[in-house]
Amino acid sequence: MSVTAPQGFEAAGVAAGLKSTGKPDVAVVVNRGPLKVGAAVFTSNRAKANPIIWSQQAVADGAVEAVVLNSGGANCFTGTFGFQTTHQTAERAAELLDVSAGDVLICSTGLIGTGDEVFRQKVLDGTAAAIAGLSAAGGEDASLAIMTTDSRPKRAVRSQDGWTIGGMAKGAGMLAPGLATMLVVITTDAVLTAAEADAHLRDATRVSFDRLDSDGCMSTNDQVTLMASGASGVTPDRDAFRAALAAVCVDLAEQLQGDAEGASHDIRIVVQNAASEEDAVEVGRSVARNNLFKAAIFGNDPNWGRVLAAIGTTQAAFDPYDVDVWMNGVRVCSAGGPDAPREEVDLTPRATELVIDLKIGDATAVILTNDLTHDYVHENSAYAS
Amino acid sequence: MSVTAPQGFEAAGVAAGLKSTGKPDVAVVVNRGPLKVGAAVFTSNRAKANPIIWSQQAVADGAVEAVVLNSGGANCFTGTFGFQTTHQTAERAAELLDVSAGDVLICSTGLIGTGDEVFRQKVLDGTAAAIAGLSAAGGEDASLAIMTTDSRPKRAVRSQDGWTIGGMAKGAGMLAPGLATMLVVITTDAVLTAAEADAHLRDATRVSFDRLDSDGCMSTNDQVTLMASGASGVTPDRDAFRAALAAVCVDLAEQLQGDAEGASHDIRIVVQNAASEEDAVEVGRSVARNNLFKAAIFGNDPNWGRVLAAIGTTQAAFDPYDVDVWMNGVRVCSAGGPDAPREEVDLTPRATELVIDLKIGDATAVILTNDLTHDYVHENSAYAS
Repeated sequence: MSVTAPQGFEAAGVAAGLKSTGKPDVAVVVNRGPLKVGAAVFTSNRAKANPIIWSQQAVADGAVEAVVLNSGGANCFTGTFGFQTTHQTAERAAELLDVSAGDVLICSTGLIGTGDEVFRQKVLDGTAAAIAGLSAAGGEDASLAIMTTDSRPKRAVRSQDGWTIGGMAKGAGMLAPGLATMLVVITTDAVLTAAEADAHLRDATRVSFDRLDSDGCMSTNDQVTLMASGASGVTPDRDAFRAALAAVCVDLAEQLQGDAEGASHDIRIVVQNAASEEDAVEVGRSVARNNLFKAAIFGNDPNWGRVLAAIGTTQAAFDPYDVDVWMNGVRVCSAGGPDAPREEVDLTPRATELVIDLKIGDATAVILTNDLTHDYVHENSAYAS
Repeated sequence: MSVTAPQGFEAAGVAAGLKSTGKPDVAVVVNRGPLKVGAAVFTSNRAKANPIIWSQQAVADGAVEAVVLNSGGANCFTGTFGFQTTHQTAERAAELLDVSAGDVLICSTGLIGTGDEVFRQKVLDGTAAAIAGLSAAGGEDASLAIMTTDSRPKRAVRSQDGWTIGGMAKGAGMLAPGLATMLVVITTDAVLTAAEADAHLRDATRVSFDRLDSDGCMSTNDQVTLMASGASGVTPDRDAFRAALAAVCVDLAEQLQGDAEGASHDIRIVVQNAASEEDAVEVGRSVARNNLFKAAIFGNDPNWGRVLAAIGTTQAAFDPYDVDVWMNGVRVCSAGGPDAPREEVDLTPRATELVIDLKIGDATAVILTNDLTHDYVHENSAYAS
């Protein structure tokens, strides 16, 4: 169901020929109201794709009626022509939906530099076809149409107190903070103001998608959109809604992690007893981006020295000789020295937990990452071919 | 010849049993004077190995009479016992050389966490054996004894105007700025003050070892030491000496790059027309650390989109739509859009040049890196076993 689980939404996914495989590649999600509330967060990459530039302007007034998404081409670094493609896509969708183009967000994903006239025509035709096929049961099709190297669609739903949140995501590589290479659409039939939608979305992404750092590479196209239809007629309890929205985002983020290109381990890095949440995040990220650590995990090698070496590159408050490191429940390093023998650590399961105890404060953060594998190198060396 | 090319130096390398292969693993380089000038730069990692903590104190007075180096164990995160091992090694060398322990620097390299009683005894015995074998022709043996996963020793010599500079280096993985996982000893018979040695060494490493970023991982043990014996009796021209020292450092850095673990491409990233040298370095580093770009080069794929996406993560001054990117002489991106077809770029040679023209200023920097390969993953997943 994903984005059509909440009341007031229709969606569709169609094959427009953007993917050489002939699989679905254009999705549309429409908010039928009565509210037209929308909020979005975007990649912090300064090299932004054309759909990002468009959508940032379009969402500024807090009103969103539809999102058009395509895979099979990022429409990034395609110049003025590429921006016009995005603009025309919004205009076409607006005309067919009888809404304002300024309330239509656009998302694209695929190879950077793809965005010629053939691409434009296929996107425009696909948008029209998807709108013609909109239905209240179209969430599943939409989630399939945004897949790139994903091996499976990502969907999540939470219902509570008469309102529902639904979401879909795509992303399998270039997963990094400031969002990952991800497109996410989240819908809800709860009654929200635009300010509430924006604040809740920022809080939820901060502890979910922004804590996923699969390969340290930041995309040019990331976008997470929340639309609220208000169709349930229920104004949710603030804390309950925030918790449910965060749960949907964490669920989708974990699905992204579990399907990361070439990965053989899902590594959950728990940094505890840090001086601040910022410190905990910085430490977790430094480990998540350390190729030597990530290659060691691929090789089922509990190489805690590489963890401490990574921590040492941060500005976080810590004493190298007062750090404990646990891998899958075994304390391999205590007080900055060797503890349990490496042989006691079983790193064969895909689910891997690394706990870093800085013993200097009471803040905690969890960062999700993956190992560095032969398959990661292979998939990303062959991507463009 | 390496470190014994200049007058006034003796060196040796012996097998002390630290390496399971039985290859040489302890080296000593001694400055016989008449000057005892020394300077050193160290890893900026805040998790510092015991030899770093020792050597930082020992070099502070600008006097260095000897350097003892071992491979086969990093003596990092080995606690008080490990620091005492370093201290005892300096004391043993000082006693045998009849110098002050405070003028003996120590360097270690190998697996973090290695530094037990067996390690200590082998280092102490190896130090004594090396000192017994010191000779003015021992530079080659010393350069062999510091190798870890290096496939070949790294040596460089420059002679000019009656003075000579010699150097040796080891390093093949964990190559990153703030130095790489490298141990470097440079010797000269030029007449230098301690202040000159320090200033010249910092300038030379800034544009050589600090611009080498093979895999983004910063070591706990990096140390570059310069010793000046003054034995030539020649006070060098300041600019000539600085240029020669930089040339030796660049030569050694390029040898490190050329032998980086598992690499199949040596990538020279030239960032030109940046607003400042700092900007140029930041941009070059962001690309050098981008796994997707590095995997693409491994696959001979001129994926310029990943270059621009990496630039976008920096704080450098640039306009995404006014950047040119050249790969091996072909302009694949101009003004932030596609230019020459990918097929025109030949990425099969090991030597790879990426030129990024930011067109916003007149500063330039060169960063040296490598591609991300199956062999890199393999070597680093099996390191500890």
